[in-house]
Amino acid sequence: MPQKPQNTTFDKARQHARQTALLQSTLALLEWDQHTKMPAQAAAYRADQITALATQVHARRTDEQFGQWLAELASQTATETENQPPTDTAATVTGLKRQFDRQSKVPPELASALARSASEGQTAWVTARQNNDFAAFRPYLQTIVDLKREEAAAVGFQDHPYDALIDEYEPGMSTSQVSSVVKSLSEALVPLVASIADSSHKPDASILRRDFPIEAQEVFAKEVSAAIGFDYQRGRLDVTAHPFCTEIGPHDCRLTTRYDRSFFNSAFFGTMHEAGHGIYEQGLPTAEYGLPLGSYCSLGIHESQSRLWENLVGRSRSFWEHYFPIAQQYFSQSLSDVKESEFYEAVNCVRPSLIRVEADEATYNLHIAIRFELERDLISDNLPLADLPAAWNEKYQQYLGVASETNADGVLQDVHWSAGLFGYFPTYLLGNLYASQFFEAAERDLGELQSGFSEGHFTPLKTWLNQTVHSQGQRFDGPRLGKHVTGKELSHDQLLAHLKSKYQAIYRL
Amino acid sequence: MPQKPQNTTFDKARQHARQTALLQSTLALLEWDQHTKMPAQAAAYRADQITALATQVHARRTDEQFGQWLAELASQTATETENQPPTDTAATVTGLKRQFDRQSKVPPELASALARSASEGQTAWVTARQNNDFAAFRPYLQTIVDLKREEAAAVGFQDHPYDALIDEYEPGMSTSQVSSVVKSLSEALVPLVASIADSSHKPDASILRRDFPIEAQEVFAKEVSAAIGFDYQRGRLDVTAHPFCTEIGPHDCRLTTRYDRSFFNSAFFGTMHEAGHGIYEQGLPTAEYGLPLGSYCSLGIHESQSRLWENLVGRSRSFWEHYFPIAQQYFSQSLSDVKESEFYEAVNCVRPSLIRVEADEATYNLHIAIRFELERDLISDNLPLADLPAAWNEKYQQYLGVASETNADGVLQDVHWSAGLFGYFPTYLLGNLYASQFFEAAERDLGELQSGFSEGHFTPLKTWLNQTVHSQGQRFDGPRLGKHVTGKELSHDQLLAHLKSKYQAIYRL
Repeated sequence: MPQKPQNTTFDKARQHARQTALLQSTLALLEWDQHTKMPAQAAAYRADQITALATQVHARRTDEQFGQWLAELASQTATETENQPPTDTAATVTGLKRQFDRQSKVPPELASALARSASEGQTAWVTARQNNDFAAFRPYLQTIVDLKREEAAAVGFQDHPYDALIDEYEPGMSTSQVSSVVKSLSEALVPLVASIADSSHKPDASILRRDFPIEAQEVFAKEVSAAIGFDYQRGRLDVTAHPFCTEIGPHDCRLTTRYDRSFFNSAFFGTMHEAGHGIYEQGLPTAEYGLPLGSYCSLGIHESQSRLWENLVGRSRSFWEHYFPIAQQYFSQSLSDVKESEFYEAVNCVRPSLIRVEADEATYNLHIAIRFELERDLISDNLPLADLPAAWNEKYQQYLGVASETNADGVLQDVHWSAGLFGYFPTYLLGNLYASQFFEAAERDLGELQSGFSEGHFTPLKTWLNQTVHSQGQRFDGPRLGKHVTGKELSHDQLLAHLKSKYQAIYRL
Repeated sequence: MPQKPQNTTFDKARQHARQTALLQSTLALLEWDQHTKMPAQAAAYRADQITALATQVHARRTDEQFGQWLAELASQTATETENQPPTDTAATVTGLKRQFDRQSKVPPELASALARSASEGQTAWVTARQNNDFAAFRPYLQTIVDLKREEAAAVGFQDHPYDALIDEYEPGMSTSQVSSVVKSLSEALVPLVASIADSSHKPDASILRRDFPIEAQEVFAKEVSAAIGFDYQRGRLDVTAHPFCTEIGPHDCRLTTRYDRSFFNSAFFGTMHEAGHGIYEQGLPTAEYGLPLGSYCSLGIHESQSRLWENLVGRSRSFWEHYFPIAQQYFSQSLSDVKESEFYEAVNCVRPSLIRVEADEATYNLHIAIRFELERDLISDNLPLADLPAAWNEKYQQYLGVASETNADGVLQDVHWSAGLFGYFPTYLLGNLYASQFFEAAERDLGELQSGFSEGHFTPLKTWLNQTVHSQGQRFDGPRLGKHVTGKELSHDQLLAHLKSKYQAIYRL
């Protein structure tokens, strides 16, 4: 591999991480290709290619010499971080050491047991969901929960084993902090959703189920995602069964979406969402690619960027003032008899439902609240697995007033637990909270943004996010970045105010 | 990486090579993606990713322990290869050792000087070709020629330094053997081409320059390539500036082509050609992927498969008896007033020209003859670089009766020399010779094939090639495989007979 002159331990550690990133990003290409372009029969060999490269990446990340460099550097930079933003050096050392420590603390046997349980768990989950058979899945889930507890013990935690699991996705966030914000948000949302359900005014969401030719959907989605700031010279948009955003290099960010000819929302809001992720990735400092200052802060912050563009921009009235006439041109057969106000209300229709991924901007948070409270209790052993389906249904009744008739539409609906992703769900809700707080801070700094949106101007907001959020990489953890940018602690106030104000108008509350 | 139990030295060497193949095939994906899907600005980082993986692959191929295993195995299997086809073990050891020895004989400094000269040479060539400025390119070419001579000396040869360069692409073939067959073929082709030029019958090739909508071209090319045997469950077809075929795994073979709405031949015959390569790759023993018995024999044999399907099948009268009515359906606007016989003659139009890649089935070989004779003399130092442009023009006059007005259309037309690919050109001509000989042997074994083609049946020929050629991998070198399959030594007889018979009918000679 090409080597630059390496003078200091810092240079050596940086260079090591950058070389790892070359392999990590190649691994990302293997995975992107698997989901988008790979011929059907190539799957088995692709798994071997991925394993070979993932093994190398893991070995480099837990390399002993690398760890010694980081320990040496950490002892030199430890005092720099008091009462001021971390320097580039301190942030780099902290970030690298954090990743090294976490990966090194998990013994190789536990790591492979976790990987195996996730692989077997996902296979078992697919079948169990098809057969609506939670009992068949339960032993796999029990193994996964037990191993995640072992992982938490190996990683270490202060108050709650779940802390160690959140830490993988949202460093700096604690179980008690998430519990508190989830509780206060839920208590405020449940009556809001109930009053929406009671409203006599019902937006006509059926207009979104008319005929939307796929070619036009693709052109429109690309036009809008480019307009909000996703750079197609440094990225792509392809089709997959499950949409995602991945990074294959500092100038190679790839989005995917799925098109449903009979449903406008899937591709359009899916692309807005993934483009939000992509704009974040494209806004990270490219010179620091593969290093903490060039990496995303946390999954919650990542999700804040996707939710901000999808919901706070893409579902705003002013956005559709600009784009509805354009949408009418693309989909003249389906939208010529629709008013802009009707379309705006349709894309903001609130309806308590069983399925998370189809949920609207308001009820989505309640789906997450349910999952968070259940998985927290599973990990702390307060909830036996045998009681999980009943607990799930009880919470759906309590928070959303709906009841699933099957476990397939209930406790078996998401892939996350079968894949061992405990601690991941809260980042979806944190993303919504951060997004509202960032948006408020952007309007504090830039003035109101809606009049710009109504003329198709998104650059001020995108540039502000580049400067305040994206450019920081991992200089701060999520909670500290939020405070640094907004001046406020994490809170449900802004999200709730936004939802109340929007839905009071739409539903005449 | 996942390891199977390794009992013997042979197992260990095989396993080493298979793990290398996981990385090599990942490298192939990086390169395929670069040409087909990669965003514009990702090029610089992609070069770093490719370098990182290529360095690993090279290190594994020249690994000292691996070399010791191979030396040990070679001493055990040396006596097995007398007077009978090599066993699986012997062929595997010979093939692995051959690659190891060749790569190990080139000192690292020479290897990196060669890589640098090729990279700089290609950049200089692009500019020189644009500016029609051979003098600007000459010093780069001189460096490359000097380094290729050094490489030949390092690798070793018996009679001619060019032997060592051919050996990289066509093991078992010698300079004198190529010289001899090129001479005899050229002597027979020059008068044939001249008599064609003198014929008063001129096929109307302009019908191929009508309007052929690209979507229909793509569907038609996929239909035909699938019909001749390319398996799209194990492969793809994409668009690139320069068509190629690459292998990303044992069940992942990818073709590319380019579409010209105003020229039928580009995509159609390009896809037939690449599909021929692909059918060969897909016919190699998948259980031996990454090992000699699962690898293509030589570039000449590879080219024989592409030329066979492109020319001997795709430009045959019986092929168009079946496919012309179908082509008329796809391109009704452009072909409804064309007769099948006119179309057949158009795709077989012979016209001496300056540009190799646009040449027909007959004159193509003369373009190669010219390049071979010049590069052979450059490497043996019988031709000073200063005299190259004049020598080029003289040979074009002599063999094809045409003269280029510029070096851009003359000595600067091909990328090969700028990339250090000396010894590569003859494999194009060898491919045509092998193809004719294989086709004759197939009809010897299967009976005449044309009546099947005229009904759209290609499976007998494809299966025969699978069994006789593809299944052998590298058990034999090219010349020995040809002899094994056809019972005959390499000769120009079959190709010449094919061309004479075809063109006598078309041109009423």
